[in-house]
Amino acid sequence: MNEISIDYSTIYAKGTPPPKAPFTGFPLYNFVGGNNDPESIPSDALADSADRMLREHGRKLATYNMDSGPHGFLALREFVAKKLSTQRGVQVVAANILITSGSGQAIDLVNQLTIEAGDTVLVEEYSYGSAISRLRQLGAKLVPIPLDNLGIRIDALSRILEQLKGDGIKPKQIYTIPTIQNPTASVMPIERRHQLLKLSKEFGVPIFEDECYADLLWAGDWPPAIRAFDEGNQVIHVGSFSKNLGPALRLGYVTAAPDILGRLVALKNDGGTPAIEQMIVADFFGHHFDDHVQRLRRTLERKRNTLIQALEEHFGTTADYVRASGGIFQWIQLPEVVDTSELAKAAAAEGIAINPGREWSVDPERGKHCLRICFANPSDNQLVEGVAKLAQICHREFGVPLRSGNVSR
Amino acid sequence: MNEISIDYSTIYAKGTPPPKAPFTGFPLYNFVGGNNDPESIPSDALADSADRMLREHGRKLATYNMDSGPHGFLALREFVAKKLSTQRGVQVVAANILITSGSGQAIDLVNQLTIEAGDTVLVEEYSYGSAISRLRQLGAKLVPIPLDNLGIRIDALSRILEQLKGDGIKPKQIYTIPTIQNPTASVMPIERRHQLLKLSKEFGVPIFEDECYADLLWAGDWPPAIRAFDEGNQVIHVGSFSKNLGPALRLGYVTAAPDILGRLVALKNDGGTPAIEQMIVADFFGHHFDDHVQRLRRTLERKRNTLIQALEEHFGTTADYVRASGGIFQWIQLPEVVDTSELAKAAAAEGIAINPGREWSVDPERGKHCLRICFANPSDNQLVEGVAKLAQICHREFGVPLRSGNVSR
Repeated sequence: MNEISIDYSTIYAKGTPPPKAPFTGFPLYNFVGGNNDPESIPSDALADSADRMLREHGRKLATYNMDSGPHGFLALREFVAKKLSTQRGVQVVAANILITSGSGQAIDLVNQLTIEAGDTVLVEEYSYGSAISRLRQLGAKLVPIPLDNLGIRIDALSRILEQLKGDGIKPKQIYTIPTIQNPTASVMPIERRHQLLKLSKEFGVPIFEDECYADLLWAGDWPPAIRAFDEGNQVIHVGSFSKNLGPALRLGYVTAAPDILGRLVALKNDGGTPAIEQMIVADFFGHHFDDHVQRLRRTLERKRNTLIQALEEHFGTTADYVRASGGIFQWIQLPEVVDTSELAKAAAAEGIAINPGREWSVDPERGKHCLRICFANPSDNQLVEGVAKLAQICHREFGVPLRSGNVSR
Repeated sequence: MNEISIDYSTIYAKGTPPPKAPFTGFPLYNFVGGNNDPESIPSDALADSADRMLREHGRKLATYNMDSGPHGFLALREFVAKKLSTQRGVQVVAANILITSGSGQAIDLVNQLTIEAGDTVLVEEYSYGSAISRLRQLGAKLVPIPLDNLGIRIDALSRILEQLKGDGIKPKQIYTIPTIQNPTASVMPIERRHQLLKLSKEFGVPIFEDECYADLLWAGDWPPAIRAFDEGNQVIHVGSFSKNLGPALRLGYVTAAPDILGRLVALKNDGGTPAIEQMIVADFFGHHFDDHVQRLRRTLERKRNTLIQALEEHFGTTADYVRASGGIFQWIQLPEVVDTSELAKAAAAEGIAINPGREWSVDPERGKHCLRICFANPSDNQLVEGVAKLAQICHREFGVPLRSGNVSR
């Protein structure tokens, strides 16, 4: 059925992308994306939860949203409300949680509610690649917020807000990932969270807080969410089950002041978030959240250690980084001579996938020498072998690192 | 946390809807929407499938899309390909199926690929309310296609296409639900399907075939899908698991010529369709599709009979309709004196929810005296009681029906 009968050149809408190439499997050394540790998926416990919940609640699948309305399955919202209150300092009731199909959908809804083409949005200079690309697709103007090892530089943000105000521009969002930032893995201290809220109020700009990784901190202080200190409507807060459980699930959530949340629900015209996943996660995390997350953190820390050791051995001082103290990513800066987009291409040809820094940078040039490695999904062996190979390729293409392991080149 | 700290009046994008009111549960007589029969949900068999699949494939939840790529879980695509081939006459391989989060997402993707504001789309004069509203939101101009008891009137469509061509307008889609039309439940005969394809080719306008209800025909001929007769790229075909299994699942699919499908995949930036739902349905329908669907058809036919009997008893000749020969809906026309939008409001106040015809009509005035009743979700008792009450309310508000049951008013 491949005959061409209709000319679609006048049918396709302007600006739509070309066809996606078929999926041909994962590369052997798969260091990209937000994939997680396969051994940490609690398959048997999830099966137990599925069994229990489907036998008890299965007949509810006959109605859209089961019996819980468009906000999502009530038991899951109750779990999220409890987790936010006990772990993130956010006092919220289930009625003020919206369960989404991944945090990506929550981001889309918040953007749909707030962004029109030409609007200005403040984004951490290095940030979630998909958040950046979604904003660009909407025609937003992105202004990068300088970061240091503790997240947003409040002094710099203050100057940017002043300058925009002087130019008559009111940004629509300050998009931030304060707790285990993506990609830098920084954790914003509590003082800066308060300072950020103060700036948000002063300039009337909402904070869009993305806490997808916040459950996975294994070292250092663990400050409450920014939303915890918001007594009004300044912070829209999203989270995810992709990182603390698994990304194939597609479950996330958003909470905000009631007027904002009600508007997000009104925009969510997808017939509801898938029910079976909500049931299973509500039951599993209702019983096993702490155990599971503590075990996952230890596994991720071990893999982070494996990665750091491999980087030290094969890249030495050529790779500059601050060790991630949580999450699933390590952000690495290489010397200026290395263009990581070119490195990614050369590596891909040899079965190694890395995320070049350009795609995680508001100003692509700023991230030109950086890369992000996801250490959660590969095995320890794959991390060691992949980093060794990556160092060889990097040396071949760019002349650095000069030494790898015991081999001087 | 309800204090107002930021003024959002300048933050919200133009045209976004007001907050959604909180969900307060279903009405007692819930005759709206695409809800299904709760007793027909195979809860125990789904639990068995979940148990089996999660224990076997659970670790794949650690990667986006498991190991199957963005088209969806391979075993589910293989099931859909087999079902389309054996039941709908559509020869297709798994690589040419895209699994979506409900057919609603498939509709959104097809619209995103083809529709820009100002474009013209041909839509059956009575059609799926959400398809109509989604097209309107995109700024499309909808032209109604006249229907009779066998679906699209080919003579009328031909004249419309000629006239538009004369005006220099090339429509972007002919959107049709040929097999158990929503809301009229008509089934388009095979000859009209061929004639429709001929017009599509002649005028270069794609057919967007929505077959969400096609598995649920219990009487009459069962013609193959229009896509079955398309040897090229004329037909984009979508289907759903909402009606043959349950709407809370949110699973649908789309198939089309490879170039079109690849573009739909490229537009689908949601991180994948939820994995656990896909696994469970692949396993359950892989083993039980025929049994389940045959049982469901018998149940739906019984409920349709209950509804028809109640309509005859309580509305008599006041209600005009063609009995549904499949699906979950009965479309009913009342006398001109009855405005069903007003009837719906009066009924809602007494715990009866109906879909007024306006929302299922391209020209709302055409559907002003019509209503749609979903007979799948209510119990037989609820159907009988609800229709009796609806007749009372209708008599009170509009003076008809003059007789209900043994009661002359």
